[in-house]
Amino acid sequence: MFSVCRQFYFSKVTFVALPSKYQRALHHESKHKIEKIKLREPFAVVAGNLPKTALNGEQAFNFLNDDAKVFIHGGAATPTILISEFYNYVMAKKLKNISAYHIHTEGPFPIINPEASSHVRSVSLFTGSNCRDPIKSGRADYVPIFLSEIPLLFRRNIIKLDLALLNISPPDVNGYCSLGPSVDVTRAAIESAKHLVGQINPSLPVTSGDAHVHISNFTSIIHGDMPCHFMNPRQMTEVEDKIGALIADNLIDDGATLQTGIGAIPDSVLDKLSNHRNLGVHTEMFSDGIIKLVENGVITNANKVVRPGKVVTSFVIGTENVFKFLHDNPLIGESLQLNFYCCFYKVFQINFIEY
Amino acid sequence: MFSVCRQFYFSKVTFVALPSKYQRALHHESKHKIEKIKLREPFAVVAGNLPKTALNGEQAFNFLNDDAKVFIHGGAATPTILISEFYNYVMAKKLKNISAYHIHTEGPFPIINPEASSHVRSVSLFTGSNCRDPIKSGRADYVPIFLSEIPLLFRRNIIKLDLALLNISPPDVNGYCSLGPSVDVTRAAIESAKHLVGQINPSLPVTSGDAHVHISNFTSIIHGDMPCHFMNPRQMTEVEDKIGALIADNLIDDGATLQTGIGAIPDSVLDKLSNHRNLGVHTEMFSDGIIKLVENGVITNANKVVRPGKVVTSFVIGTENVFKFLHDNPLIGESLQLNFYCCFYKVFQINFIEY
Repeated sequence: MFSVCRQFYFSKVTFVALPSKYQRALHHESKHKIEKIKLREPFAVVAGNLPKTALNGEQAFNFLNDDAKVFIHGGAATPTILISEFYNYVMAKKLKNISAYHIHTEGPFPIINPEASSHVRSVSLFTGSNCRDPIKSGRADYVPIFLSEIPLLFRRNIIKLDLALLNISPPDVNGYCSLGPSVDVTRAAIESAKHLVGQINPSLPVTSGDAHVHISNFTSIIHGDMPCHFMNPRQMTEVEDKIGALIADNLIDDGATLQTGIGAIPDSVLDKLSNHRNLGVHTEMFSDGIIKLVENGVITNANKVVRPGKVVTSFVIGTENVFKFLHDNPLIGESLQLNFYCCFYKVFQINFIEY
Repeated sequence: MFSVCRQFYFSKVTFVALPSKYQRALHHESKHKIEKIKLREPFAVVAGNLPKTALNGEQAFNFLNDDAKVFIHGGAATPTILISEFYNYVMAKKLKNISAYHIHTEGPFPIINPEASSHVRSVSLFTGSNCRDPIKSGRADYVPIFLSEIPLLFRRNIIKLDLALLNISPPDVNGYCSLGPSVDVTRAAIESAKHLVGQINPSLPVTSGDAHVHISNFTSIIHGDMPCHFMNPRQMTEVEDKIGALIADNLIDDGATLQTGIGAIPDSVLDKLSNHRNLGVHTEMFSDGIIKLVENGVITNANKVVRPGKVVTSFVIGTENVFKFLHDNPLIGESLQLNFYCCFYKVFQINFIEY
């Protein structure tokens, strides 16, 4: 097993340390146990409930009070239109002490505007590029935590969520909306938050696995069509190309299960695996690099013990191609139960170091 | 835990006993272990392979020889049109000693015709109504075996399959066909059989979970549109109605996970559960009875530890309503990994005794 850990460098990071009793609560029995405390099961029908269709934030958020704790859907699914409506509502109503929790947000993010500072505070649990400068300058917070432990913050009510803002596909004939490319910690937020507000987005790729939420769980919805936030492929340097080839040729065996992160090294490694056989994918995330390997039969997932046959991921980000590949593809199962790598045959983790 | 076991009564049953070395092979380490020996992973793309589109059996089965061992898809998905083409081919070519393995077949089944006896022999691994009389009269065979152990017959090459006949949905944009309402032992047959021949059936409900096969795994396909084999609801007797109420009121707790079989007692029990809360379903099969319980929020699957939120089943049979409910429904995950009931909270098994 080979692992290069993700490391971040911030010149002036504001760390928000959790009280020690919560640190214990997080680590105690956190492995191989699914929490049972939840307000809702996202797949279940709430009989007789239909969300209010709102035209704007004024109609969508009228239940919101001071001191609310809010989760915001992240990654390629960051609900930009809904965030804007939420921000306008908080500012118009002069709400106080709102906390906005999120991982890896993309695109415009008005809640980190200086004029919002006495109303709403951004708390990154995994920092997207739009939050790095505000964190450095002290206008936003960052909590260092393992991705796999964030669901416990919600499920154990360490962060007791009042609201989750979600980017969702229109309900299908059975009433199910999909979370698209970002299931990650979002499912736990949905299980725990008192209110769900959805941005109904026909351009969101429909994903399966644990990605669905029944529409009857929502308090209100707003229509907002927008493409996924994409990540352009970066031109690979000669050094990255060489590192990828060395890893692919010397460290990854046929039949291995891959876990990949974001960045040039994972992309470079995937680019060099065309002659491998029976690779599997059970991963934090994937990007464009796996498409070719699925299409030419290199990724078969035949050796996986957990979810054999399936590519399992927590979130997806990349170009328009990867969102097209993701849409309604039964090969892909999205989930966050990713802390069981011990069950796999020859797990190979490819992450990166960011300077 | 309460279990009424399924029992069959045959006046003159022809049992085919497996040689004792195979009986040991079946039972040794059969629990909690997924077999690794397989010819193919059904989800994987076989690069460069496209099946031949055949107009008839003559074109579809021209690779077939004497002594072949053939699997036939069963239950509501029994591929009647393909079976007819297969039968005609075997008879026209006068092939000898063909064995046809299957579970719970429905509809016309010409391979049990007396005139086929010197060409093809039907072997039920779980007997459908169309095979009971031929078994009684000695024209067909029956192997007594647990449903959960049948995949091992294929995966361990105890029965070395040359061909599987499958009823499949048309390939989707990514090339995936669904096995519709019967995944059951069929997935193991697909992993093991040298050749797959599919009846492309636009009327088959599209199911997910482990239900998909990539079209590139097929040797040939025939177009054949037909509805699923249905099972009419039976009028409940007063006694069955009373038994159902007694079981629902006295034996099934809120939060229980249900396993149901075919028959009047499971139907009657499900009919009486409308006031229960947070039931889960992880089952051999289900029928029309669960639809109402999902729609009114009684079945939430919130307490399940394995596949929380999802209804997991191995096959589905019932009226047109249940196939409509099943189609493209992200709530339903079809699978055969059903031998882990020990993981659940308050499992309640409802089967029946047939006289």
